[in-house]
Amino acid sequence: MELFFLGTGSGVPSKNRNVSSLVLRLLEERGTTWVFDCGEATQHQILHTSVRPRRIEKIFLTHLHGDHLYGLPGLLSSRSFQGGESPVTVYGPKGVKEYVDISLKVSGTRLKYPLYIKEIEEGLLFEDEQFQVESIALDHGMESYGFLINEKDKLGELQPDKLTEQGITPGPIYQQIKKQPVTRLDDGRVIYRDDVVGPPKRGRKLAILGDTRYIPSLKQKLEGVDVLVHEATFASKEEQMAYDYFHSTVYQAASLAREADAGTLILNHFSSRYQDQDLSILEKDAKAIFPNTILAYDYYQHYIPFHL
Amino acid sequence: MELFFLGTGSGVPSKNRNVSSLVLRLLEERGTTWVFDCGEATQHQILHTSVRPRRIEKIFLTHLHGDHLYGLPGLLSSRSFQGGESPVTVYGPKGVKEYVDISLKVSGTRLKYPLYIKEIEEGLLFEDEQFQVESIALDHGMESYGFLINEKDKLGELQPDKLTEQGITPGPIYQQIKKQPVTRLDDGRVIYRDDVVGPPKRGRKLAILGDTRYIPSLKQKLEGVDVLVHEATFASKEEQMAYDYFHSTVYQAASLAREADAGTLILNHFSSRYQDQDLSILEKDAKAIFPNTILAYDYYQHYIPFHL
Ligand SMILES: [Zn+2]
Ligand SMILES: [Zn+2]
Repeated sequence: MELFFLGTGSGVPSKNRNVSSLVLRLLEERGTTWVFDCGEATQHQILHTSVRPRRIEKIFLTHLHGDHLYGLPGLLSSRSFQGGESPVTVYGPKGVKEYVDISLKVSGTRLKYPLYIKEIEEGLLFEDEQFQVESIALDHGMESYGFLINEKDKLGELQPDKLTEQGITPGPIYQQIKKQPVTRLDDGRVIYRDDVVGPPKRGRKLAILGDTRYIPSLKQKLEGVDVLVHEATFASKEEQMAYDYFHSTVYQAASLAREADAGTLILNHFSSRYQDQDLSILEKDAKAIFPNTILAYDYYQHYIPFHL
Repeated sequence: MELFFLGTGSGVPSKNRNVSSLVLRLLEERGTTWVFDCGEATQHQILHTSVRPRRIEKIFLTHLHGDHLYGLPGLLSSRSFQGGESPVTVYGPKGVKEYVDISLKVSGTRLKYPLYIKEIEEGLLFEDEQFQVESIALDHGMESYGFLINEKDKLGELQPDKLTEQGITPGPIYQQIKKQPVTRLDDGRVIYRDDVVGPPKRGRKLAILGDTRYIPSLKQKLEGVDVLVHEATFASKEEQMAYDYFHSTVYQAASLAREADAGTLILNHFSSRYQDQDLSILEKDAKAIFPNTILAYDYYQHYIPFHL
């Protein structure tokens, strides 16, 4: 599980930072990739990486500002051109379906894979045996969401010593015992799985937020996330400007991470007014409040290990 | 007057060639820039050039395939963000208005300059005292056009010897004589401008074509253009493939340039199947038929001098 930042600027592209997009690589977990936001030239950024468009399974859009959206038709089209065949689901605020439909229609594009577009509200978006994705409403002047990605806890490892203790020697029976809650052996004995596996592996929790003003009450929903990806369009002292433009400051993002007791805070969506020197000040500001802060840059990769 | 190629690939972007866009710089002529086609990341390509989005006056779209279109909303938005205030007119096939309107609407974009969108058919698109732009219908499976840009002939230079011959000494009267067809001097004499200026300067003529199959009858309309920009998606031997996909081969493009007696042929829109080695073969092929052929590459600039 790895976050791969493709665009970490805001508003308009610059030479160093493209507009918003990041990828959650779930290659080990499910052989697929999820995309979060899709600013113009996301497919161009991908060209310079090992990300494979055909692996894309889901695309989540936090909101429909152009710098988060305008790369979507091109990415969808190129994925088809390059032979992508598996279905893709797009989750985004109301309006995304009309935008994609018209873009594909006027350009005469026929995708060679099934495309599902789900217009979202706050709540549960997706759940299977591995993951649960929930959207959280933000405050950005237009509909904007954060996404809470909950990996489900995984069964603990089978403990061979506990099995041999009971005289069960290694063999295909081990797999069977792991697969089902209760196993009846040939000799009539009943083995409860819970008795022979170690503690469950706690699933990882990520929050990837869209553009937003600071919302103090978010801390409850984000409580204990391993990674929080948060915009930091403005420097800490620009609180009024952040408020006026429906954005957050570095100070606000770091405060939220501290209040939510997050593991790591990754900041992105920096205003192009900030150059490299300025960013190192922003970084110091953030770390004063929340030490485990990282400022993302284009092509920054962040590996998220299992919980031990 | 200069052509500046921003994207010379076809279909999908590659590391070396972006999808279609080129710019006609008319800085000396009218202080503005015209854009022809606007594939995704055209604004990103522009970032690496001295092209200024605020100078853009007109955007012509040959057709609405995504590789010629998907960069338009981003370019229009960024031009506004960067302070562009002068009006922009977009000329393109039916559908472009709906696409731009929806893209700006769902993204909540309000441009700070007037935007006019003209859905075109074959015929005269624009005319002023300097230029005339005409569209020509092509054959691409969807509505596709070429643009014929005719610079109007310019008045010849005032010939001082012819004026002094008549006893008219240099002064503000020279400007007056140049400005109007007939000037009455204080002493009652009448000076006809045609008698005292040199031969008119012949205007330049360019043709920038969209994607198309080979159309033999185009040669009449393109007769004598100084520069012909033509797609060459496929190698000469791929005539059947070009036909099937509504594109042209190098051989066909070069033949048209020869038949139309063009000055220079510039090829673009190469299929990504062709690597650098292949392209030098394509170049040889083209030059065998039309020696003054240039293969465009991203950021290639082609200066078009005045006629002597
Ligand atoms: Zn936004
Ligand atoms: Zn085309």
